[in-house]
Amino acid sequence: MGIRIALMGYGNLARGVESAIKQNEDLELVAVFTRRDPSSVKIRTTGAQVVDASKVEEWKDKIDVLVVCGGSATDLPVQTPKYAKMFNVVDSFDTHAKIPEHFANVDKAAKESGKTAIISMGWDPGMFSLVRMVSDSILPEGKHYTFWGKGISQGHSDAIRRIPGVKDARQYTIPIESAIDEVRSGSNPVFTARQMHKRECFVVAEEGADKQAIENAIKTMPNYFSDYDTTVHFISQEELNREHGKLPHGGFVLRTGVTGYDKENKHVIEYKLKLDSNPEFTGSVIAAYSRAVYRLNQEGQTGCKTVFDIAPKYLSIKSEEELRKTML
Amino acid sequence: MGIRIALMGYGNLARGVESAIKQNEDLELVAVFTRRDPSSVKIRTTGAQVVDASKVEEWKDKIDVLVVCGGSATDLPVQTPKYAKMFNVVDSFDTHAKIPEHFANVDKAAKESGKTAIISMGWDPGMFSLVRMVSDSILPEGKHYTFWGKGISQGHSDAIRRIPGVKDARQYTIPIESAIDEVRSGSNPVFTARQMHKRECFVVAEEGADKQAIENAIKTMPNYFSDYDTTVHFISQEELNREHGKLPHGGFVLRTGVTGYDKENKHVIEYKLKLDSNPEFTGSVIAAYSRAVYRLNQEGQTGCKTVFDIAPKYLSIKSEEELRKTML
Repeated sequence: MGIRIALMGYGNLARGVESAIKQNEDLELVAVFTRRDPSSVKIRTTGAQVVDASKVEEWKDKIDVLVVCGGSATDLPVQTPKYAKMFNVVDSFDTHAKIPEHFANVDKAAKESGKTAIISMGWDPGMFSLVRMVSDSILPEGKHYTFWGKGISQGHSDAIRRIPGVKDARQYTIPIESAIDEVRSGSNPVFTARQMHKRECFVVAEEGADKQAIENAIKTMPNYFSDYDTTVHFISQEELNREHGKLPHGGFVLRTGVTGYDKENKHVIEYKLKLDSNPEFTGSVIAAYSRAVYRLNQEGQTGCKTVFDIAPKYLSIKSEEELRKTML
Repeated sequence: MGIRIALMGYGNLARGVESAIKQNEDLELVAVFTRRDPSSVKIRTTGAQVVDASKVEEWKDKIDVLVVCGGSATDLPVQTPKYAKMFNVVDSFDTHAKIPEHFANVDKAAKESGKTAIISMGWDPGMFSLVRMVSDSILPEGKHYTFWGKGISQGHSDAIRRIPGVKDARQYTIPIESAIDEVRSGSNPVFTARQMHKRECFVVAEEGADKQAIENAIKTMPNYFSDYDTTVHFISQEELNREHGKLPHGGFVLRTGVTGYDKENKHVIEYKLKLDSNPEFTGSVIAAYSRAVYRLNQEGQTGCKTVFDIAPKYLSIKSEEELRKTML
């Protein structure tokens, strides 16, 4: 029997974790918990049960790791500490400014229960954080840059959908290539938000809606759009579904720095992701860290962890000997 | 007082570690050990001593970490286990096929002495290994590729210099761009050695030497050159010194993989290094892991470690709170 994993929720991310579990023979999906009517939720894994979320505590001894697949705004701040009292948990909390508070809450719960938790896992926060942090340690006199895209930002797409007269929308975040090239040159540029990314929106308007008003509402929206060059295209629902139905994403972390007794040598570290499916890649990262959280707990390392706290070997199905022989 | 570091040897790598230590305020270079006459070795760090290598044992209580800067062929297999009996050590052992044996020898010595050792640290093995291993764990159904260069391979340059009639030489390993692009496309190509890299040699011939014979000797040299498209240029010593006096290097690790219940989505992870100075970047990696080896030993984690065994947080001068707040 493998490591028994359950999912709290069954949205895009949970389905990404589900398919990742299938690719790892030591991981096993045993249950999906839902706030919907369980009979209405069709999952793809034969043998796993769909269970009402209110019954999760009954599964205390039947699950090794619970992946909490809620949203960062309102679900995870409540759910992750709550479930860390019963289970080893992993979440993808990505509200950067609130990470210290979330960490403290989850750490307290997990330490009291003797469980292990990993928060803020995925690719950003997650893999990008790992590269930022390690690169910062290696090249202390330098600067790091994060570019996102080209890819669909769900937060920005949601923001457009909240505008009156909008039926549906997708927003692509697009990194500006000339800015990336400037960073690669090692010149340590300072950018405004507008100089790093642009935003492209595909909008389905309701019949009779004022398109000019919608476009203005988008382009002037603070935080989300007003600081960026934004393009708005009105298209049909059919075209949106056909051309923009996937959830690609990706991005770049770059670290530039100098070395040498007279700081005469430049170095550029570049980490790039090109992802056909944001939730499936995030789910794949979470699956590997589910293995890690289980192992850490078996070793008695309890409390809340992040990507910074976990030795890479814990992620792999391979033995330490095999890793040294084949990957080092 | 910072973490007290000493260097065994004072070649290119040791000088790279020395300048990296200067960039990290919690690290302090206290001594350089040499097999040469200490009075003939001029180091750049004020306050550090140059000491005869035979006296290293006298420094048992005055050093926190000894960085062993010898060569992988004959120095490190002897030196790292020997010094792990007295000190926490870090080395850059890079003979991939012999890593398991080296690990076992160093592990035994370090466990007996209660010291901590890190072997095979730098960028490959080192940072590239980290990316290969983590990416393999995240995308288990995929393939990884490592391309080196453009950069100077010291091993290949040395091999040319051993040919009769050759006074001096530099060899550049050059990755083939079209092969990298093929990998990026996600097509999982299978390459021969020749399809991934080419080799460009700059050779200074001795007066009256048979250049055609030298060129043939290079191009037909097994392992080093015969499996590659190799170009040979004869130039003067002055031009070699002027145009090829630096030690740039770099390369790419790419991992491609599929996800999804029907494996319908492709992902590409790409990690790229562009380094003006190979030994200074390697030295910078080693400096960060010297901090780690000291901390691990303080925590009682003894024996031999590799990049796979070390949680990223140990590399950073920053506190865990600060890392979560600023890097996650």
